[in-house]
Amino acid sequence: MSAGAAYADWIAVDWGTSRLRVWAMAADGTIRAEAASDDGMGGLARDGFEPALLKLVAPWLGSVPVPVVACGMVGSRQGWAEVPYRTVPCAPGALQPVPVATQDGRIRLFIMPGVSQAKPADVMRGEETQIAGFLVEEPGFDGILCLPGTHTKWVHISAGEIVSFQTFMTGELFRLISEESVLRHGIAAEGFDQARFESAVADALSRPERLAQRLFAIRAEGVLQGLTPEAARSQLSGELIGAELAAARPYWLGQEVVVAGALALAALYGDALQAQGVSAQVLDAGPLTRIGLGRAYTTISETTA
Amino acid sequence: MSAGAAYADWIAVDWGTSRLRVWAMAADGTIRAEAASDDGMGGLARDGFEPALLKLVAPWLGSVPVPVVACGMVGSRQGWAEVPYRTVPCAPGALQPVPVATQDGRIRLFIMPGVSQAKPADVMRGEETQIAGFLVEEPGFDGILCLPGTHTKWVHISAGEIVSFQTFMTGELFRLISEESVLRHGIAAEGFDQARFESAVADALSRPERLAQRLFAIRAEGVLQGLTPEAARSQLSGELIGAELAAARPYWLGQEVVVAGALALAALYGDALQAQGVSAQVLDAGPLTRIGLGRAYTTISETTA
Repeated sequence: MSAGAAYADWIAVDWGTSRLRVWAMAADGTIRAEAASDDGMGGLARDGFEPALLKLVAPWLGSVPVPVVACGMVGSRQGWAEVPYRTVPCAPGALQPVPVATQDGRIRLFIMPGVSQAKPADVMRGEETQIAGFLVEEPGFDGILCLPGTHTKWVHISAGEIVSFQTFMTGELFRLISEESVLRHGIAAEGFDQARFESAVADALSRPERLAQRLFAIRAEGVLQGLTPEAARSQLSGELIGAELAAARPYWLGQEVVVAGALALAALYGDALQAQGVSAQVLDAGPLTRIGLGRAYTTISETTA
Repeated sequence: MSAGAAYADWIAVDWGTSRLRVWAMAADGTIRAEAASDDGMGGLARDGFEPALLKLVAPWLGSVPVPVVACGMVGSRQGWAEVPYRTVPCAPGALQPVPVATQDGRIRLFIMPGVSQAKPADVMRGEETQIAGFLVEEPGFDGILCLPGTHTKWVHISAGEIVSFQTFMTGELFRLISEESVLRHGIAAEGFDQARFESAVADALSRPERLAQRLFAIRAEGVLQGLTPEAARSQLSGELIGAELAAARPYWLGQEVVVAGALALAALYGDALQAQGVSAQVLDAGPLTRIGLGRAYTTISETTA
């Protein structure tokens, strides 16, 4: 350990399909350092996980083994080690991270279990820890938590438990279609046209079954009518979020809804819900995973005390 | 030209987003040779088209310039040269290929125009030539022609004209989701479960708005309930084709329908339609593009005679 480098009492790890984020934590919950890379689960073979983690956290390790608490796809069948799901209903604040063997003796690894639902079949990995973090902040919450992202979750929470949930591939479809499909030629990487987004949401909500056709219409309007790449991006976003809202209607209609995610994306969901008469609270999910991992870390400390 | 190589009177070229197919044709319509490559429009920069074509057709060229008639995305804005669309209603059998300059004097290139529709905005490139080929075979056809593929087209044909059409990105979505999304871990490259396909079609037709959720359910059922990769492939196919049929209902309900495509895929559309009480005729679209290009070649010969 080089002089001046941060030392971690424990390390929080959010390891999703496409990103790896790590925090050097002090025992009192303050953040001493943080780092991130694109070494998501999706790009790693089983023996690639430990090197990818060490690349980021090595400067924080010392002579005493440091507990590492990780959540997300790192615990899936394609991850570092498969950690079984807990089934709903379950209290995310009571989930115990599972010890996993490592090659390097400087870390003691624990991975959070995901949560599954038998019918309709559904799974989450990582969001259970975000929800645990949310419930640390709002212990009495009773309602719907929407977590938009690659795989958006709509979660019914009551009495500190996940009652049921439903996943939509909206974020992944947006990325695949905007970056890999024929539409990529006419879709901007940035920029937004709010009015077009909102009209696309309304359009999708009224005729949700026409998705595959309206997607191609974005291409055709670009070619024939000069639809700008920014407008095309907004329209694609609106079509996909609108289609999701149409399917998730039982989750938000007449419910108290909190949308927690990256703020720009969460705000889009908030706007789309507002247009349907639902005043959703929008918040930045940034700290939630880390807070949830901190709660899980206390259960390790208790176990090993 | 090496001894024994085929010489072409003209060359037919079907140049789509992902594939390039060429035929060395005799003036009397017989095929002297054929070749194909993965040099589709999607992977080529503007100056890559001519070398990609010559790589396949060079053995067929001689001292006299050979007419080359091409259709498909080769004529799009991202293609070799942009050839303007003709608008519906239009007779595909009367479309004139447009001369395009080449570096190599051994070929005389002509590219077919695509067909566009102002409202709802839609475009085709390549299918107009398939339709022209179909109308050479069935000149009196009045009804709906479905051309399943990367971008499936539903085309209303009457009195030798394309009256209207509608495009669905179903094939491209199938490829992206089965090969690039998180579902790829649980989807077989081959194999099929007909019963599961049919139940997914029925499910999608009854609740078409739930697509983004049911896609993730395929992942969840694979993880939790041991859904086999073959069954997952069939279910994804059924979900996407069912959603398409739900949106295309005005095109097939109570109509005479012909489905022309790769036989295995066209048969799936035929089965799905059959389950809705529509007896569609299923045929192999393989020869149609070449027949349509042959019709276009005769208009060049007439022009330059």
